Amino acid sequence: MKKNCIVAQSGGPTAAINASLAGVIKGAIDSEVYDKIYGSVHGIQGVLNLNFLDLSDATPEFIDKLQKTPAMYLGSCRFKLQDMEESTSEYEKIFDIFEQLNIGAFFYIGGNDSMDTVAKLSKYSQAINSDIRIAGIPKTIDNDLIETDHTPGFGSAAKYIASGIREMAYDTCIYNVSSVTIVEIMGRDAGWLTAAAALARNEYIHAPHLIYLPEVNFYEEQFLSDLQKLLAKYRNVIVAVSEGIHDENGNYLAASLATADKFGHAQLSGAGKYLENLVKNRLGIKVRSVEINIPQRCAGHLISKTDITEAFRAGEAAVALTELGKTGFMTNFVRVSENPYTCDVSSVSVARVANKAKAVPREYINKDGNDVTEAMINYLKPLIQGEVYTEFTDGIVDYLDISHLTNQ
Amino acid sequence: MKKNCIVAQSGGPTAAINASLAGVIKGAIDSEVYDKIYGSVHGIQGVLNLNFLDLSDATPEFIDKLQKTPAMYLGSCRFKLQDMEESTSEYEKIFDIFEQLNIGAFFYIGGNDSMDTVAKLSKYSQAINSDIRIAGIPKTIDNDLIETDHTPGFGSAAKYIASGIREMAYDTCIYNVSSVTIVEIMGRDAGWLTAAAALARNEYIHAPHLIYLPEVNFYEEQFLSDLQKLLAKYRNVIVAVSEGIHDENGNYLAASLATADKFGHAQLSGAGKYLENLVKNRLGIKVRSVEINIPQRCAGHLISKTDITEAFRAGEAAVALTELGKTGFMTNFVRVSENPYTCDVSSVSVARVANKAKAVPREYINKDGNDVTEAMINYLKPLIQGEVYTEFTDGIVDYLDISHLTNQ
Repeated sequence: MKKNCIVAQSGGPTAAINASLAGVIKGAIDSEVYDKIYGSVHGIQGVLNLNFLDLSDATPEFIDKLQKTPAMYLGSCRFKLQDMEESTSEYEKIFDIFEQLNIGAFFYIGGNDSMDTVAKLSKYSQAINSDIRIAGIPKTIDNDLIETDHTPGFGSAAKYIASGIREMAYDTCIYNVSSVTIVEIMGRDAGWLTAAAALARNEYIHAPHLIYLPEVNFYEEQFLSDLQKLLAKYRNVIVAVSEGIHDENGNYLAASLATADKFGHAQLSGAGKYLENLVKNRLGIKVRSVEINIPQRCAGHLISKTDITEAFRAGEAAVALTELGKTGFMTNFVRVSENPYTCDVSSVSVARVANKAKAVPREYINKDGNDVTEAMINYLKPLIQGEVYTEFTDGIVDYLDISHLTNQ
Repeated sequence: MKKNCIVAQSGGPTAAINASLAGVIKGAIDSEVYDKIYGSVHGIQGVLNLNFLDLSDATPEFIDKLQKTPAMYLGSCRFKLQDMEESTSEYEKIFDIFEQLNIGAFFYIGGNDSMDTVAKLSKYSQAINSDIRIAGIPKTIDNDLIETDHTPGFGSAAKYIASGIREMAYDTCIYNVSSVTIVEIMGRDAGWLTAAAALARNEYIHAPHLIYLPEVNFYEEQFLSDLQKLLAKYRNVIVAVSEGIHDENGNYLAASLATADKFGHAQLSGAGKYLENLVKNRLGIKVRSVEINIPQRCAGHLISKTDITEAFRAGEAAVALTELGKTGFMTNFVRVSENPYTCDVSSVSVARVANKAKAVPREYINKDGNDVTEAMINYLKPLIQGEVYTEFTDGIVDYLDISHLTNQ
């Protein structure tokens, strides 16, 4: 008798996480093992609340559009399961529901926090000798999961950031006046996304002229000195900084700028705004800051075909691996060759991945700590290749109907 | 004997101003009247400094790619000519150079400040009985030029903003937690661009749930009350605000939030950041602000085909009108019919346009001052229609070589 399966999404949105969902759905539809496909709404909480969408009859058109729809079709959650050593009540409830719904496999698409859930469910499943397969599928724009060459969602965010910075270079060079533009990019602890800004460069676009990642300490005086050197060479300088840059004591720059509103409440501004003020006050030059903000993770109109294709494969492979009896794993990417770029989808024990983070290695950052190296560029380049055709209706980007999330 | 012509760009960048430049070049190449086409670098300053690019041999490929290249291929300036009643020295220098270069026409693509330059040069030309034609071609993302249905550059910015807000709606609805997102949009005095946010809506995307333009006074208590009503209905509320919203005394909200950095310097934050703090402190709800910032005017990868086509026509028509002997004009758009949308390119005396601004009429704003009306939607919709194929090289948006601007 066929079993059913559940798929859910968790953590922050990316432009590729729905492609992994599409891969799971396609894999499960094509499968001899699985019958019904339940989409759990709002992650593992959807299981606990019995909040499911039936995805079993997904059409090829639906699956295709889902791949290109940003953010999370099934919604998300930030929910940490209790350790089973402390209490098993949540686990019992979840596995009771799995039983009632005749579940053969549970697929969870998420980042390192979500892999904690996968690891815990796997451990409990093993402890009670359940044959329900538990599988993780990676995603995060931050690219900070270990045991995988890169993560789905990163390539699209990287492509968006690099293209955006190239366009800002067109914007900032028009006046015959020196200027500095500080661009703040997501990634509090890992600098992968900020590093991707380097891909904006070509023979005549020199932006970003400086790149600062959170993996190295940020020294304000050194930055001002770097900047002045660049301004002697280029009229309009663009600086890419991670939101998480910090001084040698680990203090975030962002935290140094406490802003008081008229109620007297303190409010943190970002690293970009902080540096804008620093440059203005110290160098007296025209300066602005741009925070790329949430578009870097939800701009479905500018995504990497490589990323979307791989995200889909990571979902599809997870289904295939559970069919072979595998459980307690996360699908991962193994770079096979650089030129031409090829990448295998494999798997790794999820217990090794959960709650860990991958920082940018020092050899990917230049000696002065204000740029990335050629090795980083070579690593990044394949991940942003290829474009995906965006649908428009009435002149506006058109994605899947998400009334189940917006009409509540 | 054929005459030569000069074309230049001025004011802030848009994604369509190069399409007007392409139209001028195409018009002049096809013309029986003009021979050499000089591109003046950095606006009228390029004339004074004899800083020209020769555009006479532009290929069809160059013209095509120019249309899709954002910002300003010829660079810009912020330069106000002295009144000729005060001093004619600048005018004499400019017309001497015109004479030396055998110029028959000068084309200036810009906003209302730039039309001041066109008006002044026209007036001087007339005063000295010169037969050099002086023509203005409109552009501004702000859509605030009078005597034209709309301005080139606005439709592309509007399309980008509406698409971006739709994507943010996908991003913000994923958690089962109430939230508010404040999106700050350009337009200090005119709310056209902020109004365009309304185009993000469809049957299930209700964002933006509130829209505040600078044409009506902003009342904080009313805003908080509006917001609470919306939050009772929708879990995740998105608010679109113009950077220029102000209280009944004309004080910008942005100015109310003076932030002090560690040097003790005051720094203005934007209206979005101000409202983020207000909502956080007063409603204690999850809130973030997003400033769309310069991408709304330089995102060449998401532009309106209608806008680019019309911008090109506005440039081409300017050449044709000078061939007929016309001078001292700005090309303008006249909406002929709504459904199907058709738009004529005509012209208007530039003296009527210069230094004036078109605000959003009250009937385009709802009674409560927190949304736009159906009439506004009907006005906006045709302007964002159609997509333009973006070129990518190595995964990154690829535009014309601008080394003449970046390598200096």
